[in-house]
Amino acid sequence: MSTQLDEARLGRLTTAIRMAAIAEKCRPGIVRAEIASGRAVLPANPAHKNLRPAVVGRAFRTKVNANIGFSTEQSSCPREIKKLSVALAAGADFIMDLSVGKNTAGLRRTMLANCPVPFGTVPIYEAVCRTGGAVESFDPDVLLRVIAEQAEQGVDFMTLHAGILKEHIPLAMKRRAGIVSRGGAILAAWMNRHRKQNPLFTRWEEVLEICKAHDVTVSLGDGLRPGCLADASDAAQFAELETLGKLVRQCRKRGVQVMVEGPGHVPFNEIRMNMEREQKACQGAPFYVLGPVVTDVAPGYDHISSAIGATAAATYGASLLCYVTPAEHLGLPSEDEVHEGVIAFRIAAHAADVARGLKNARNWDDAMTEARINFDWERQFQLAMDGGKARARFRKIAGKKTKSLDHCSMCGAEFCAMRISQKISLARKKPGRQ
Amino acid sequence: MSTQLDEARLGRLTTAIRMAAIAEKCRPGIVRAEIASGRAVLPANPAHKNLRPAVVGRAFRTKVNANIGFSTEQSSCPREIKKLSVALAAGADFIMDLSVGKNTAGLRRTMLANCPVPFGTVPIYEAVCRTGGAVESFDPDVLLRVIAEQAEQGVDFMTLHAGILKEHIPLAMKRRAGIVSRGGAILAAWMNRHRKQNPLFTRWEEVLEICKAHDVTVSLGDGLRPGCLADASDAAQFAELETLGKLVRQCRKRGVQVMVEGPGHVPFNEIRMNMEREQKACQGAPFYVLGPVVTDVAPGYDHISSAIGATAAATYGASLLCYVTPAEHLGLPSEDEVHEGVIAFRIAAHAADVARGLKNARNWDDAMTEARINFDWERQFQLAMDGGKARARFRKIAGKKTKSLDHCSMCGAEFCAMRISQKISLARKKPGRQ
Repeated sequence: MSTQLDEARLGRLTTAIRMAAIAEKCRPGIVRAEIASGRAVLPANPAHKNLRPAVVGRAFRTKVNANIGFSTEQSSCPREIKKLSVALAAGADFIMDLSVGKNTAGLRRTMLANCPVPFGTVPIYEAVCRTGGAVESFDPDVLLRVIAEQAEQGVDFMTLHAGILKEHIPLAMKRRAGIVSRGGAILAAWMNRHRKQNPLFTRWEEVLEICKAHDVTVSLGDGLRPGCLADASDAAQFAELETLGKLVRQCRKRGVQVMVEGPGHVPFNEIRMNMEREQKACQGAPFYVLGPVVTDVAPGYDHISSAIGATAAATYGASLLCYVTPAEHLGLPSEDEVHEGVIAFRIAAHAADVARGLKNARNWDDAMTEARINFDWERQFQLAMDGGKARARFRKIAGKKTKSLDHCSMCGAEFCAMRISQKISLARKKPGRQ
Repeated sequence: MSTQLDEARLGRLTTAIRMAAIAEKCRPGIVRAEIASGRAVLPANPAHKNLRPAVVGRAFRTKVNANIGFSTEQSSCPREIKKLSVALAAGADFIMDLSVGKNTAGLRRTMLANCPVPFGTVPIYEAVCRTGGAVESFDPDVLLRVIAEQAEQGVDFMTLHAGILKEHIPLAMKRRAGIVSRGGAILAAWMNRHRKQNPLFTRWEEVLEICKAHDVTVSLGDGLRPGCLADASDAAQFAELETLGKLVRQCRKRGVQVMVEGPGHVPFNEIRMNMEREQKACQGAPFYVLGPVVTDVAPGYDHISSAIGATAAATYGASLLCYVTPAEHLGLPSEDEVHEGVIAFRIAAHAADVARGLKNARNWDDAMTEARINFDWERQFQLAMDGGKARARFRKIAGKKTKSLDHCSMCGAEFCAMRISQKISLARKKPGRQ
């Protein structure tokens, strides 16, 4: 099949490219050129019928991904379907289903039918569940089959941990926290048990054939992402990154779209270096980061510690931000925590778009300022990232006077700086005033 | 009176210096030298009896201030006393009471008696309340008297908006959001009404005499801080900053400790420049910032949008962070929102301390990592920024098995990456293994 990358290289403006350009409020030619260069991807599996295509890359709005899915111990299909709608309502641009356990194929079918945004998976999970037994006994043939089946189902992008090699395992074993990526740990366990190279790496051409046939975008997993500040930017992480750079080249050669996943846990001062290093090692492929959290000490608040890191990441090089919820390091998120995570990351993404001077990004802030100085509360709630919450919070104090109130309870009418400031301005405009 | 600055310059290690050094786990000579140079302040009014002195400056742990206090329309003395204890329990290093209305002196007495951390005020508020009538009709003599009375009461530091001059008002009137500082707006209104210079500026020597007599630390207010991204880093803000630099020099000449307040609303990419500019304009005086928020569009979540800005601020130059709560731009915070604000800012302060390589800062993260890899949940909760919340969140799923659980519900036992990783490590250590 001709992928979006193939078409873009041929100079063709596909329907998906045109739709993505409308969403970005830019000319389709820009979207096409960015995809052709590999600096952007447009994950759009033709079998995902109700998809509104969205483009990921530095030339465009920073996107937010929400991970959902049950584990073997918690949650259920109906609950995860509920989380899907909560994440979408909160404004998630991308969704990944990370379910492990029984009937993941059925859940995925329902999710795909109800997901108008690009939808991703981690096929190794299903491969392990199908094989049964210990995680390291999965069968590589089953993994390839799972990739093909999920591609046929309509999955738009897949995390594939093809860059973690058996040579990297000794480096990871020197770390404090070892391997903290589920997919990375499974593949490392398989390599360690069988004393063989990563089957995704050795059979990469077969994998790419499937991705090419369904225009599945490869999301190169970072199996060796650091799991604590102490392990950040270490030899294991960067050894894998170099391999990812080579895999990016192979994807592009085959006309397969590719992005690259990144950390994780990174001190605030090392984020910029990490972003720049990825861009160089992977020839500008879009960087898709998980957080990163900037401290390990805030379980229960990791949506905040990671929104801090995500803002820096998106300012300096990332294009897609995977949210972290307040439940991170403690358990699976509830519906409310999914909502909180998406909002925190939309704040990070937008703050970064403003910081890097993305065209028109600041118009939103300026519109809010206009509503604020006019004490137009309803307009503020319409513009707010989460208008429902802002409105409810304001009404708790102001009651139903929101339409007429020309100050807020923070300072009260008499002490409202904006009111005083506006009176000064009026006084200075009076005739007769020097 | 001999202030901490006078004593430090004379090479004396005061009791307050020794106590602050113990809290910082450093030699008292370092605290003394930093205070003597003006790069640090130690707000410790001798009349504040139960104070545990804390030092503010780049050589030390970044501190977090919590603003509390009622407005003319909301809250009450008992409720604000409750917020004081919530803020302290959450770990606030500094407290400011911003109450406006009746009986603020009585509330302040109770707060001071119950506040073991440095306590600050904004005297102009009481001066306006005492005068009655429009805010711009306050009497400068009353303002001076209020400063003296609050100093006698034991207030450790005071926000004084002495740097906003009548020449700056036209610059501020060109802005989208004008003046958004309460104190700044009141002084501008007074100057505009009376066509006279800022009385705090013209009578600065009298003010310093009072501060000197009680060792009150001056916190130079930024009356022209930007109130929206569009106004950030503008001519009005930097004109006032230059004046603040001159006032810093006068404070130091008189032996009065001084720090400088800063924005506000700043795009993420302009934060570093703002921090460096203040350090230069104000000869290294400690910078005390409010947030800054990095986007205007997230009312209800401004503790997050400002924790992002605060992390960058403390990484690049700020020493004291004034929290912003989820209620910002909507109303006065509830007790829960005070708690959320303090925690968000403690995350920002610590992340920045790690980022700037403050000695021993990362030990905390490394201890958490150790507890994580050992699945020692109780230890994780003991170490967590907010252990109560983390514990409650974990127990919701894990029940009472927290002591023995060797995985979390996020991945489940079988798919726990850390467990798999540890098994790989064990397998590789077995005898016979190459």
